[in-house]
Amino acid sequence: MQRYAIGIEFCGTNYRGWQTQQAGILSIQETLEHSLSKVANHPVVLHGAGRTDAGVHATNMVAHFDSASERSDYGWIRGTNSQLPDDISIQWIQRMDMAFHARFKATARRYRYVIYQAAQKPALLYRQVTHVRHPLDIKAMQHAALKFEGTHNFESFRAAACQSNQPVRHVKHCRFTAHGPFLVLDIEADGFLHHMVRNIVGCLLDVGQGVHDIDHIDQIFAAEDRKAAGITAPADGLYFIQATYPEHFQLPQVMLGPQWLNWPN
Amino acid sequence: MQRYAIGIEFCGTNYRGWQTQQAGILSIQETLEHSLSKVANHPVVLHGAGRTDAGVHATNMVAHFDSASERSDYGWIRGTNSQLPDDISIQWIQRMDMAFHARFKATARRYRYVIYQAAQKPALLYRQVTHVRHPLDIKAMQHAALKFEGTHNFESFRAAACQSNQPVRHVKHCRFTAHGPFLVLDIEADGFLHHMVRNIVGCLLDVGQGVHDIDHIDQIFAAEDRKAAGITAPADGLYFIQATYPEHFQLPQVMLGPQWLNWPN
Repeated sequence: MQRYAIGIEFCGTNYRGWQTQQAGILSIQETLEHSLSKVANHPVVLHGAGRTDAGVHATNMVAHFDSASERSDYGWIRGTNSQLPDDISIQWIQRMDMAFHARFKATARRYRYVIYQAAQKPALLYRQVTHVRHPLDIKAMQHAALKFEGTHNFESFRAAACQSNQPVRHVKHCRFTAHGPFLVLDIEADGFLHHMVRNIVGCLLDVGQGVHDIDHIDQIFAAEDRKAAGITAPADGLYFIQATYPEHFQLPQVMLGPQWLNWPN
Repeated sequence: MQRYAIGIEFCGTNYRGWQTQQAGILSIQETLEHSLSKVANHPVVLHGAGRTDAGVHATNMVAHFDSASERSDYGWIRGTNSQLPDDISIQWIQRMDMAFHARFKATARRYRYVIYQAAQKPALLYRQVTHVRHPLDIKAMQHAALKFEGTHNFESFRAAACQSNQPVRHVKHCRFTAHGPFLVLDIEADGFLHHMVRNIVGCLLDVGQGVHDIDHIDQIFAAEDRKAAGITAPADGLYFIQATYPEHFQLPQVMLGPQWLNWPN
């Protein structure tokens, strides 16, 4: 039996999220399992580094599976990608020690959230960014983002349906940057609660639009109540971009996505 | 009666091209006319700067229409955009002199073609770039692109179905640049023949993959025969980005798209 890690890029628009939850509702995970199983010639079970909501994208979701079938790395990737729909693509594969586990060995997850600030809605990236019509106070949002760094109780920032048994998370960094009309939140934490990134972005948008000042975030934290925070920002702008593992696993280093943010004109 | 010019961004993936050709086949033009007519409260006829093939995108297609209905600029844009599907969006509107004509007054059109060179297929931009798996000789493609500049007979580079009565075009510039894995051809001409950009890209890909050397392009020109040139590159990577008009019309200057190519990380 061989354990394999894979890196997956997907556009989440047409899926009900990463995880298989209910028969008849298409998930990224089961779509991948279906294609991998054809190549493996046996049922494949996939374990992902994180779960993503319906509509959320990934540029480098890490997952693992086991197989005794003999295939070249090229055979696994090309075989599976040729079975997959166009909006899911395996980018790399690596043979792993059985001690590796995509979910339980991950020490951190990283997301980016992309806001497109412009007077008119975008037609080309319409499901891959969150459009905000009104100008935003970028500097205020940059300062506000820093409030989320460190160890906090994120009770006010998790969905009612969140199944995690405790709401404390350590946020390694939470930085907000502007690239022309594209405003990007980059956030890394040991783990995320359900809707946590989207709820943080909802608060930042309130600050950016002058609905709340920066210090209001302290009050939201103090309330430890979801109702204290603002709206949940849409899924369209959210990307899972990285999972971190202990160095000895030597997983491939992939450029942080979405890729189109990386190259200047 | 007032003449209006509009700038339109669209994702061409779900359409049979700009122009209405056949009942029951959805075009960008008729989708826009339908929404504009609702806002105008009378049938609106739209004239575009250029025609685009099925699947081709635009970041700033210019078109004009006439209406005696009194609407604010804001009313026209927001009213129409709220009627339009998510993959078509009016970006600006401007009141014009009746002497303006989006098609007949355009002195040049400009396109960009985006190739994504990577070992594995992209899942996020899959309909907005053309994926090429094998490494390309960028320098050779850059030199080859220059062969298309100037005034030439493009008979070998037009589709059999091309309806133009003469095949000579003046190409103002034809430049090929690399931005990480995104390779971009930027081409401007007084006008384009049917499939001309995609046939030029097909030739450049042949050069980039070593199928032909640069001087082979001279032979293709000399043949004046479509069969002498290579394949027609896919529509997915092609964007109509600019139409040029005499300066006195004072149309808005819009940043050249696709927008995501403009901002560095």
